[in-house]
Amino acid sequence: MKALSIEKNAVNYRADLPFETSPNEVVIQPLLVGVCRTDIELAAGYMNFSGIPGHEFVGRVVSGSEKFVPGTLVVGEINCGCQNCDSCKNESARHCQDRTVLGILNRPGAMAESLCLPDRNLLEIPSSMRLDTAVFTEPVAAACRIIEQKILPEDGADIAVVGDGKLGILIAFVLDHFKHNVTLYGHHPVERVGLFEGTNVRVVHSNELSSKWQFVVEVTGRPEGFAASYGSLKPQGTLILKTTTHEPPPIHLAQAVIHEITIIGSRCGPFDMALTLLSQGVIPVEKLIATRLPLSRGAEAFRAATQPGALKVLIEIQD
Amino acid sequence: MKALSIEKNAVNYRADLPFETSPNEVVIQPLLVGVCRTDIELAAGYMNFSGIPGHEFVGRVVSGSEKFVPGTLVVGEINCGCQNCDSCKNESARHCQDRTVLGILNRPGAMAESLCLPDRNLLEIPSSMRLDTAVFTEPVAAACRIIEQKILPEDGADIAVVGDGKLGILIAFVLDHFKHNVTLYGHHPVERVGLFEGTNVRVVHSNELSSKWQFVVEVTGRPEGFAASYGSLKPQGTLILKTTTHEPPPIHLAQAVIHEITIIGSRCGPFDMALTLLSQGVIPVEKLIATRLPLSRGAEAFRAATQPGALKVLIEIQD
Repeated sequence: MKALSIEKNAVNYRADLPFETSPNEVVIQPLLVGVCRTDIELAAGYMNFSGIPGHEFVGRVVSGSEKFVPGTLVVGEINCGCQNCDSCKNESARHCQDRTVLGILNRPGAMAESLCLPDRNLLEIPSSMRLDTAVFTEPVAAACRIIEQKILPEDGADIAVVGDGKLGILIAFVLDHFKHNVTLYGHHPVERVGLFEGTNVRVVHSNELSSKWQFVVEVTGRPEGFAASYGSLKPQGTLILKTTTHEPPPIHLAQAVIHEITIIGSRCGPFDMALTLLSQGVIPVEKLIATRLPLSRGAEAFRAATQPGALKVLIEIQD
Repeated sequence: MKALSIEKNAVNYRADLPFETSPNEVVIQPLLVGVCRTDIELAAGYMNFSGIPGHEFVGRVVSGSEKFVPGTLVVGEINCGCQNCDSCKNESARHCQDRTVLGILNRPGAMAESLCLPDRNLLEIPSSMRLDTAVFTEPVAAACRIIEQKILPEDGADIAVVGDGKLGILIAFVLDHFKHNVTLYGHHPVERVGLFEGTNVRVVHSNELSSKWQFVVEVTGRPEGFAASYGSLKPQGTLILKTTTHEPPPIHLAQAVIHEITIIGSRCGPFDMALTLLSQGVIPVEKLIATRLPLSRGAEAFRAATQPGALKVLIEIQD
């Protein structure tokens, strides 16, 4: 089949890759796939990844589903668990130690003509939802995770989101929807401010946090961004860590003890909540689409997504 | 007056130091003062400290108290706040930005013939309590802080305490008392095991954590100890950070995101809870006393406290 393949830090378009079907899984034809920051990091060597990337997708059921007839449009939870461990039984596959992750860990991804996922991972999209919207389900779910983790007071918090990349923008929308008072810090104000008309999100053109915060979401993905976020916390403040950096951050954990800081990691989130928000039109995700390219121009799509300030690059997979 | 003084990374006994009284504060005669790891770090240059150290004390009210008649035996909360900020008004002075801290920050400490503290910081010790017990109130309060922070499930948690120094031991006792299932990891088993007879604390002679933990208290005070504790957490586990290290720990925060780890700092705690536990005989603190030396031999006391595996060194202050 046709697919993109990451090999030795390069993204290649290949027309000759085998489709590895998994027994008892559903075959899905991806239609639209988002390029995520994680994909770019995988292409740069993160997790020593090789193979087919892609985990933000909307597609069409082809065969093998007991829940959905062929042709049903679905999105899919990317973590596939063992079904036997405590995580799988009591919570979700997101923390199964033996999990595979679509396009990230031991499982071919969605930048291909076909993919496999377990039936239980699939959610049908509402009939009125456009593919351009549905393809954002996975990153919106990641933003919703902060709500699901019950880190913030339910009656609303003053919160700084540091980093105005794609995920930072989605987080700002989600937190605003849940009545939190959001200030989004970042370097790209001009094209960002318009996105937030009609919301209470305040956009500040800086990564320098001008005041002290009880809650900060760190989503810059850079060690120095982490240090700035960490340094801007009030005593007993909470830093929600959303993006990963390879290098150790230049911080002193003694400050975390003295000021009794909490640092809490936040990763994948609930697809059902994300689909609900998207169907309610809470987030104008389609305004975040920068460009769309066919699968055959995948390397170009990755380059476009790597540009500073780039919004969402989509890969269209033709029938 | 006679006092110890830290000057240029040396601990000196001085007989000629002035006693700086503060208006509206209580004058106290310290009788017994513990040497804490923080004192040793202050002497080594931490926080660029100079002046009189000492913050673990029991003493006698001399004058200036509206709550206590002269002669009353008291312990004292070490954080002195501005009384006007949100922290002081709503919680405690522990996180007041303008606080002074006895023997640590802009306030002369207890290793002296006299000290001053605000009346509100003082608690009378029970009449039956020995000075040898009461002098442990401050470190026991620090151990109790973990309970006060409501980090652990009330019906009991499996928890590893990593580091069997003085504070690690006190934490193990306090957590055991509150029905948590404690394993204490450290390098000093022989003299430690006997302490825990009659408790459910399991003592393991290693800093290598043999299994994965939902809750870990890091109290080694060493960067590599932090890394070992961090690496032993289960997904969605919580690392309670109790001691401070100067160097950045050699860890990757990406793991905190992937596994949704929580790191939470924990510092000073509630004196009332500590006094209650001590009066109930929950912790055999007197068994932790390694040696006692007069104020005039303060430098020797610091050296004794610096020995690997040293338990509590007390400084006796004569009338």
